[in-house]
Amino acid sequence: MGEAYPGLFITLEGGDGSGKSTQAAELESWLRSRGREVVRTREPGGTDVGVEIREIVLHHRGDIAPRAEALLYAADRAHHIATKVRPALERGDVVIQDRYIDSSIAYQGAGRDLGMDEVRDLSTWATGGLMPDLTVLLDLDEDAARLRLDSARTRFDRLENEASTFHRRVRQVYLELAASEPQRFLVLDATDAIESLADSIRSRVTTLL
Amino acid sequence: MGEAYPGLFITLEGGDGSGKSTQAAELESWLRSRGREVVRTREPGGTDVGVEIREIVLHHRGDIAPRAEALLYAADRAHHIATKVRPALERGDVVIQDRYIDSSIAYQGAGRDLGMDEVRDLSTWATGGLMPDLTVLLDLDEDAARLRLDSARTRFDRLENEASTFHRRVRQVYLELAASEPQRFLVLDATDAIESLADSIRSRVTTLL
Repeated sequence: MGEAYPGLFITLEGGDGSGKSTQAAELESWLRSRGREVVRTREPGGTDVGVEIREIVLHHRGDIAPRAEALLYAADRAHHIATKVRPALERGDVVIQDRYIDSSIAYQGAGRDLGMDEVRDLSTWATGGLMPDLTVLLDLDEDAARLRLDSARTRFDRLENEASTFHRRVRQVYLELAASEPQRFLVLDATDAIESLADSIRSRVTTLL
Repeated sequence: MGEAYPGLFITLEGGDGSGKSTQAAELESWLRSRGREVVRTREPGGTDVGVEIREIVLHHRGDIAPRAEALLYAADRAHHIATKVRPALERGDVVIQDRYIDSSIAYQGAGRDLGMDEVRDLSTWATGGLMPDLTVLLDLDEDAARLRLDSARTRFDRLENEASTFHRRVRQVYLELAASEPQRFLVLDATDAIESLADSIRSRVTTLL
């Protein structure tokens, strides 16, 4: 599937706690057992420059202008893709990446007053248009997300309701992105059993190898 | 001239050593003597976030992917304009800024393999489209620039010839930008006497106050 490279670019998307790390680890060991070289990476912060950028964003949280923050994330991505991901794909490795362009569109686009098209354009420019061969969306429905919130806290207060509204919007954007690119996306129910999810991902990856 | 604000936004452009700082200081003290509040600032590095961004760019010089570097400069600009320049313009101050969008187009566009239109679009998005009311270009012609190089070193070697070629390209872009927006630009010969340059700038600023 790789356009101009022999490698395979796989991204994992979904909310925190949806099981992305677990599935990335499962997929990595399965691929390695089949003799493939694997690079596991993440955004933000997948390079040394990215770590420094992330420090700025975290250290100044709340004080950074929204467009500046979006540009810093895009800079991290530009460097990460150019220096780590593209070289790996050109070597023929499989890159398994935690969060990519869809996270930016879903979180920055849904959460801030930046347009989703603007966030997408920025990210596309940053990466020279590199898109994943496969994006696994670990989808967590409203009730499941609420249940996880309930188990962590005893009652819904204002902040929890805001978090719930934000989660709903992010999820909706994710699902719309998946619907608009069904060939790129594999949407799975994050509440399914770990082994069942891993099986589904392996099946899809097999068709791409 | 300020569109939606009572202040005045003036930028100074030109190569290093063209006298931007001297003219900024002259203009500031003249404006203050007329009772205007003045904010003098610069890019990159005009804010605390900008200083940290600049540290990354300088510390990793040569190792940062070109688009990542352009995005970092744009992030610095977005934060600087949103948190320092716009508030000053809304208060009614005169902002005198050393380097802005024209520097990005001239240096990044002429020097790297990034398109000038791309650099302009990025900067325009970063700032929400804020353009200066007046841009003073302190133009240094080829012979004058060469003379300054000669006085600092004894002969032209390859590096100096490259520097000369780069200077010529940057200057050409600057002059094209000025020609395309004659109302915004005041182009002056940087080899003129300091007081004569200051007079010319004051005359133009007077028409804008």
